[in-house]
This record gives sequence, structure tokens and C-alpha cells, in this order.
Amino acid sequence: MKILIIGDVVGRAGRNIIQQELTNLKSKYQVDITIANCENASGGNGLTEKNAKEFFENGVDIITMGNHVWDKKDIVNYIDDYTNLIRPANYPDPCPGKGYTIFEKNGIKIGVINISGIVYLNNLICPFTTIDAILEEISSKCKIIILDFHGEATSEKIAMGYYSDGRVSLVYGTHTHVQTADKRILPQGTGYITDVGMTGPFDGVLGVDKDIIIQHLKSRRPVKFEIATGIMQINGLYVEINEKTGKCEAIDNFIKVIE
Amino acid sequence: MKILIIGDVVGRAGRNIIQQELTNLKSKYQVDITIANCENASGGNGLTEKNAKEFFENGVDIITMGNHVWDKKDIVNYIDDYTNLIRPANYPDPCPGKGYTIFEKNGIKIGVINISGIVYLNNLICPFTTIDAILEEISSKCKIIILDFHGEATSEKIAMGYYSDGRVSLVYGTHTHVQTADKRILPQGTGYITDVGMTGPFDGVLGVDKDIIIQHLKSRRPVKFEIATGIMQINGLYVEINEKTGKCEAIDNFIKVIE
Amino acid sequence: MKILIIGDVVGRAGRNIIQQELTNLKSKYQVDITIANCENASGGNGLTEKNAKEFFENGVDIITMGNHVWDKKDIVNYIDDYTNLIRPANYPDPCPGKGYTIFEKNGIKIGVINISGIVYLNNLICPFTTIDAILEEISSKCKIIILDFHGEATSEKIAMGYYSDGRVSLVYGTHTHVQTADKRILPQGTGYITDVGMTGPFDGVLGVDKDIIIQHLKSRRPVKFEIATGIMQINGLYVEINEKTGKCEAIDNFIKVIE
Amino acid sequence: MKILIIGDVVGRAGRNIIQQELTNLKSKYQVDITIANCENASGGNGLTEKNAKEFFENGVDIITMGNHVWDKKDIVNYIDDYTNLIRPANYPDPCPGKGYTIFEKNGIKIGVINISGIVYLNNLICPFTTIDAILEEISSKCKIIILDFHGEATSEKIAMGYYSDGRVSLVYGTHTHVQTADKRILPQGTGYITDVGMTGPFDGVLGVDKDIIIQHLKSRRPVKFEIATGIMQINGLYVEINEKTGKCEAIDNFIKVIE
Ligand SMILES: [Fe+2]
Ligand SMILES: [Fe+2]
Ligand SMILES: [Fe+2]
Ligand SMILES: [Fe+2]
Ligand SMILES: [Fe+2]
Ligand SMILES: [Fe+2]
Ligand SMILES: [Fe+2]
Ligand SMILES: [Fe+2]
Repeated sequence: MKILIIGDVVGRAGRNIIQQELTNLKSKYQVDITIANCENASGGNGLTEKNAKEFFENGVDIITMGNHVWDKKDIVNYIDDYTNLIRPANYPDPCPGKGYTIFEKNGIKIGVINISGIVYLNNLICPFTTIDAILEEISSKCKIIILDFHGEATSEKIAMGYYSDGRVSLVYGTHTHVQTADKRILPQGTGYITDVGMTGPFDGVLGVDKDIIIQHLKSRRPVKFEIATGIMQINGLYVEINEKTGKCEAIDNFIKVIE
Repeated sequence: MKILIIGDVVGRAGRNIIQQELTNLKSKYQVDITIANCENASGGNGLTEKNAKEFFENGVDIITMGNHVWDKKDIVNYIDDYTNLIRPANYPDPCPGKGYTIFEKNGIKIGVINISGIVYLNNLICPFTTIDAILEEISSKCKIIILDFHGEATSEKIAMGYYSDGRVSLVYGTHTHVQTADKRILPQGTGYITDVGMTGPFDGVLGVDKDIIIQHLKSRRPVKFEIATGIMQINGLYVEINEKTGKCEAIDNFIKVIE
Repeated sequence: MKILIIGDVVGRAGRNIIQQELTNLKSKYQVDITIANCENASGGNGLTEKNAKEFFENGVDIITMGNHVWDKKDIVNYIDDYTNLIRPANYPDPCPGKGYTIFEKNGIKIGVINISGIVYLNNLICPFTTIDAILEEISSKCKIIILDFHGEATSEKIAMGYYSDGRVSLVYGTHTHVQTADKRILPQGTGYITDVGMTGPFDGVLGVDKDIIIQHLKSRRPVKFEIATGIMQINGLYVEINEKTGKCEAIDNFIKVIE
Repeated sequence: MKILIIGDVVGRAGRNIIQQELTNLKSKYQVDITIANCENASGGNGLTEKNAKEFFENGVDIITMGNHVWDKKDIVNYIDDYTNLIRPANYPDPCPGKGYTIFEKNGIKIGVINISGIVYLNNLICPFTTIDAILEEISSKCKIIILDFHGEATSEKIAMGYYSDGRVSLVYGTHTHVQTADKRILPQGTGYITDVGMTGPFDGVLGVDKDIIIQHLKSRRPVKFEIATGIMQINGLYVEINEKTGKCEAIDNFIKVIE
């Protein structure tokens, strides 16, 4: 099973790249399924139903989210209508949407889970308890299990990698919007990377206009964020999972810059 | 001018790698000067005078620090005795030690600056104001200027890269202990990477035993950290700076794993 | 000089109380000047120009602000038109508005300063450095100096009280919306209270509908805040300052509940 | 049932006051049971077994703790030996100690619960979920239930008061070390105060020497805390609970200064 992971898609720029590049990327890697983090896809924060539909139409199979999941308020109304749009599983019940999905492709079931870190982020339910509970439910149902762990602190993300090693096929981090250089296969066969990076403007700060962010950091006052313009990038991960064992057999990260 | 940057050296394991590998690395890259972040070098947090001396004896030219600078209490007594041991410049005055140094090699002056980020970290003086003030003092004295920006948030680190672009030769991040995959030369000629990573145990969490960190994150209680054992890694950066223009002409990151 | 201090005014409810009760309170205490913190006066966060004018018309002499100062975006356009509307002094320059004012009443000059704490709040310039710099400017101009220190952490607020003792007439805390029971005159003659409390709904959570806040804390998701209804309260402080010495001679806190 | 609550006891100074004053206070108010928060009793942070024993010998019936519970490392070894020493209930299982106890006096059972807030504090299990779960277990066993809610944010503490109103006899806050002026009986009969304050040095910052704290806040560097000296204070609450209904019938706060 060949899987393509796309890092946090930011704003219209990010959506446009997906529209233009995803078909090529998928055929280049002969991808079976594509998972994209879309928490910043609509105006930089959150996801509208219209944009969610476009991602699915443009070839994304599963959308994961993060701390910005509720920023477009309408999502609480539509999220339950989409089987393959998931949000961090560790929000307390009751909560709209769900934290994992089981996707089927070529007769093979792939569990996809989204969990948020809690260090420097919202105080959600313990990520480690959460992954234990979800695996208890789904491990017998699907050999291949993918975890998008949306976190800030490198310590928490690496700890989650080791904690899940041998129990899931892949743990990849999102949220920092900067790809890390540490992709590897952990001792028990789980693919791992601390962060896959982002998809959108190349010459901004996490996708936002750099002068606005500098102005914000210097003035310590609120600013109106605007998505950066210019050259684009798509950051992601390409992995191969053994369908019989659920082990990761290959993991490759890429940063593609598009002028 | 060829410069070797070494990411956060962690504990005895990290110190041992430096002792064993630094001479080879320096000759392999024909390095002129070596800068190492040593905030975690003694027992995982802080730096003793004994260890500082060893680093200098083993070939480190300049030591930079970070948020753990004061963890070994004796440093306030000895830091002013070492010209080439610097701590984050944005601590309020009066403060032991200094935030930059001008190092001379082959008749060429190299300014080395250490600044701490303030997002998710200690509330120090604004990093952007700080770099402006230091550059005002030293820009006329040295063409080559290197900044170790010790920060957590990717946004703040990238913003510092753009903010300093064209005014310093290199901005590299430290602190997260995970190397990022985004090294580049910015439009005005400044080399940049969000984080250079760490030097010490490979199979731990930022250098610490992984089971202890997982136990800490699950229990939410204090634990006694212990440095991980096993395979080692050295993470760093190799850069070439044009001595006439101060521009970065080459930047290359490396993660060397040592069994 | 008799001074009336009014704690954080919240929403329309708080504005109505001021309109109804301020004249009575001022005559009851024979107040010379009235200072009110209005950072939450417009819809719970921020202050519109229309509401600022109403406060001045209703008898407030000086308006202080806090971390919500920029929440109503228009304030950056009008704040410089109002001599007696001040915002935390420790925002970095350049910044709209100013951090202190010198008000004159009956031929006596009263310095009023607004500073924000930085523990658990925005990383502004050091409050202690800030008060030193302002006192250097104004101490020779006015005997009576009042500081609204807008902070979260009790440690930082008490520390500011002691730090300013003998140099200002009164340090009072705002921001937590809960009045503390620790008003006193410090050894060198400065009146002090950790927090004066709030003005607005009595049966809410800091002025906001209690069920909404409980829902927010349990769900960890964003909610739309609504100002609570029902019984009202006005929290404040009444102080007497010796005009010759600038020392505080009397300090009395009050919580008035209005059915 | 007459209950005496003692706010965070700080250091040897605080222990001495308890030894000297508790017998008088108990007889003055004809107290049936005494509950003291002792998280800072040993050297300012944590609680040794020796000091815990002294509190029980000096007339404290139940000891509650807070975020400093684990600071004296030996507590994990002895806490399970003491029925009436409780720690925040919302630490994840497994955890040494327990979060509530049922104390019996004159044939009447009194449930005493300790929960920590999570806003600005450690990311523990949701306090609201925690109180629900404990009440489910103990509500049928004891009419009188007391909650020490150890929190920083006033919003979270007030929200807990309303959330528990009618289900417990008393919710009192600890942790900020500053007594608030908002004690009241909530609509459904629960006594409430946001913080009871502290017991120890009067002229310090939360019990610590004020010059050391100011030095810490100005320098942003670690300091060695020392307990303040001089005048002492004991802060607390005196409440009367109806034994048949479990409702709070009287609540009175006190700050006693001892020269
Ligand atoms: Fe994101
Ligand atoms: Fe995110
Ligand atoms: Fe480090
Ligand atoms: Fe660090
Ligand atoms: Fe406020
Ligand atoms: Fe505020
Ligand atoms: Fe305490
Ligand atoms: Fe505490």
C-alpha cells in the first residue's frame, strides 16, 4: 500500500497547489491513498465545507485537522456528514465529528487517526491514553494504521512515535509547518517523522506574509494575517506499508518548490 | 571561511561524541571555526566549567547556550572568564556573561551572537530589538556574523531569518533538538535553518531516556531524567561564508549516526 | 485628594451601572477624581470610541485598559485623540496611545499610569523597568501618582506593590475580575490591593454567562461569549491621598450589589 | 458542623503559626474539623512526612495539597500511609495517594476532595469531569462534602463554584496565596470563595522574601527562594454546614496578622 501524506495546506495558495499538483504527485508515486492536513486551508485558519468538497474532488482521500479545526464555525454543522474528514480524537465527548476513520481501498482497510498534542497547545485528553483506546477498538479491524499527530513540542511527538512503535504503521507530525529531517523507521517497524511541513507559500512565515508576522512579533499587538504570495511549496511524505504485516517498508519526505 | 555548527550537545554521551568525532569532522570539511551549543552538556541541563574547558580543548572555538544556561549554578561565577562562551543576549542587564563575541581566525573577524526566542520560552527582551542593537555595534567591525537563535516556535525562528537576511551571514536555530529539512540561502544572502538538531543519544527523546519521558507525559508528574544510551548521533551544519561580502555561499546540514 | 477606582467594566451591563450609580458614588465619597478600567466595556472585550465618550460624559475622568485594549480594532484610530484614555505603557514603541497621563484637578497634578503584567499574559516590556522609566519622567511633576497594574499572577502584582512602595501613591491590580481582601498601606506609604474586581453582572463568570464558560471549559472548544444577565455589581476602591506628601492615608474597598 | 479552613501554609514560619495559633482558633470558633492546604509547608514547596505528622499532631484533621504535591520526593513513599492526606484527584491513574477522603466526626461523615485547576497549571484530567465522577461515588455516603479547588485562573474557580452548586457544601480556592473578597453562599446552598489566601509571612510575596522575587522578575533568571521573615499572617475560612441538608449556612473569611 502506497500512501501520500500532505502537510498543512495553507489558504487559497495551498488549495491551488493541490488542485494543480496532486494528480501528478499521485501518479509519480503510484499512490493508493492520499491524506492531507487541511486545518489552515480556508483563509489560513479552519476549513469551509466548500473547500473540504474541493479537496475530495481533487483527489484527497482523507482530511485530517488540528488546533484550528473549529476556526470556521460552520464545521460543527457539516463535519458529521463526511466520513473521511477527521478531527483530533482527544476532544472530550460529546464533540462533533470523529477522531479516526477506517478507509477501504482495493479491499484493504486503512485506519487513519488524528490526535492533538497538548504541550503548548489546548489541554485536551492525554494523547497516549487516546491512542491506546483507539487501537483497542480498531487494531483487530485493520492491519494498516496511520496517525497524524498534530503537535508543537518535539519531545511529545517523538515520545508518541516510540509509544506507538509496532502498533501503528506510521506516525507523522503536523502543525509546525516546517518539515523535519528525521524521517526513519522505528525499531518495531513504524514509520516516523516529527513534522511533514506545509503546503502553500514558500516565502512566508508558516504561510503568512512575513512582514506582517515580523510586525506582530515586534509590536506584540494583534495583526490581520494575510497569506503570503510568490513561489509555492508542497511538503509531504511518501510511504510504503506492507499490507500483510502493517509495517512501514519505505518512507521518503519531499519538499517540492513550484515557481 | 568554513564554519561547522554543532547542535545542542546532550550529557556525557554528547560530550564523548565531540571528543571522538570533532577532529575528523573538522578535517573532513576543512573547517576554520567550530561553534557548538552546549546548554545541555552537563547532566542534560547546564554546563560546568570543567565541561566547558573540555569542549575548548577538544576543538570547539565558541560555545553558545540557551534557556538552560543557568541550570548549573556555578556558571555565574565562571562565565565572565571565558571570552568565547556566550549566553542569550536578551537577558536584561545586569547579567553575568555576554550575548556575543568577536572571534578572530586567520586575521578575519567573525561575530557570533546568541539570542533566545520568547515564544513558549522565558519572557526575555525582544529578540528583534536585540539583534538590531547588536548589529548596530558590530556590523562595522566584522563582515561575517553568525546568529544562534535558540527558540521553540517555528514562526519566530523563520521570522528572525527574514528579519536578519542580508545583515548577518547565517541564522541557525537550536533548542528543539530535531533537525529541520529547510536549510536554504535567503534572498539577501543569509544562510538559514530552523533547527540544527542535537548531539547525543539517537534513540531517546531529545537525548533523554524515552521510557522516562513517556512516563512523565502520561503521569503528568515530575520524573528524574536520565540520558539515553545506545547508538549516538551528531547533528550539525556546514557553511561557507564569503569573507569579502559576508554572504553565505554554501550551507549543508548533516546527521551522522554512530553505532 | 479623594480618588474613586472602578474595576474592569464589563459590557453593556457594566456601562449601565456606571451611568446609573457613578454620580451617587462620587457624591457619597466626595470624590475628586474617578479612574475606571474599561478594557471589557464594549461587548465584553475592547472599547469603542462611542463607549469611551459615554464614560467621560458619565463622570469618569481617566480610562485605563489592559490586555484587551486592541480588541475593538478602531481604537488605534481614535486613542490618540483622548488625553485621558491610557493603555499599558509597556507595549514596545511605536504604539498608538500612551501609557500614562497627568490629570489636573483643583490645581493639583495627578499622574495616572497603566502597566500590564507579563506573567501568563502577553510578553511585553518588563513592568519594573517600565515603572522606573515613567517615574523618572514624572516624579518631579506630580506628587500624586496612581498605577493600574493589570496582571494575572498574584506574585507579580504584590512584587510591583513593594517595588513601587514610597514612589507612587497607589498601586491597584486589575484583570482577574475578582476583588481581593488584601488592601493595605505598605510601609513607605503606598496604598495597595491585588485586584479591585469588576463592574457588571454579579452572577456570571467574570461577567460572562456562567453556562457558556462551563461549556467552554468542559468541551475545550471555542464558544461565543455572552454577557450574563440578572443582578449587577460594582467593585472598586476609595482612597485618600495626602496632596503634600503623595502618601496614601486611607484605602477602602467596596463591592456594591445592585438588584 | 463547624469547619475551619486554613490557606496554603508556607515554610517553617507557616508551620510555627499553626502550632501556636490553631488551638486558639479552633476553640474560638468551636470548630469540629480543620482542613489545611500544606503544599508549601516544607521549605516553601512540598511536604515532608515529618511535617505532615506535626500538622496532624497540632490539630489539623485533613491535609490537602496542590501543584507542589510532588516537590518533596519522599511523598510518593509515604502518602499512601495517611488516610487524611489527599492530593489533587485529577492526576491520571496510576498515581500514589488519593484525591478524596471520607472523614468521620461525631458520627457524621464529611467528604473532603482536592482537585487542581488546569488553566495556567499542569494539564491534568478535566476538573469538571473529575468532580462529577467523585460525586457519583460519594454523594450517597456523606451529606457534607468540601472541595479544595487549587487553581490559578479566577474564571475556572468561579465556574467550578457554580458547577458544584447544590452538589457540595463548600468550594474554596487555594493556590494564589491572596485571599479574595468574594465569599458567598451560592443560589443552591454551596459556600464559595475564590481563594482563602495563605498562612506564613505577611510581608513577603506569597511567603517568599520580596527582594528575591523582585530580583527574579527583573532579571528573568532563576533565584534561590527564601521564606520571608517578620510579621506573620494566618488566612482562612470558617464555615457552618447543616448536617441534615449539607447546605452551607454561614461562611466567614479571616486574615489574622500576628506581630
Ligand atoms: Fe497548521
Ligand atoms: Fe496547527
Ligand atoms: Fe537544548
Ligand atoms: Fe533549549
Ligand atoms: Fe478585564
Ligand atoms: Fe484583562
Ligand atoms: Fe500554594
Ligand atoms: Fe499551588
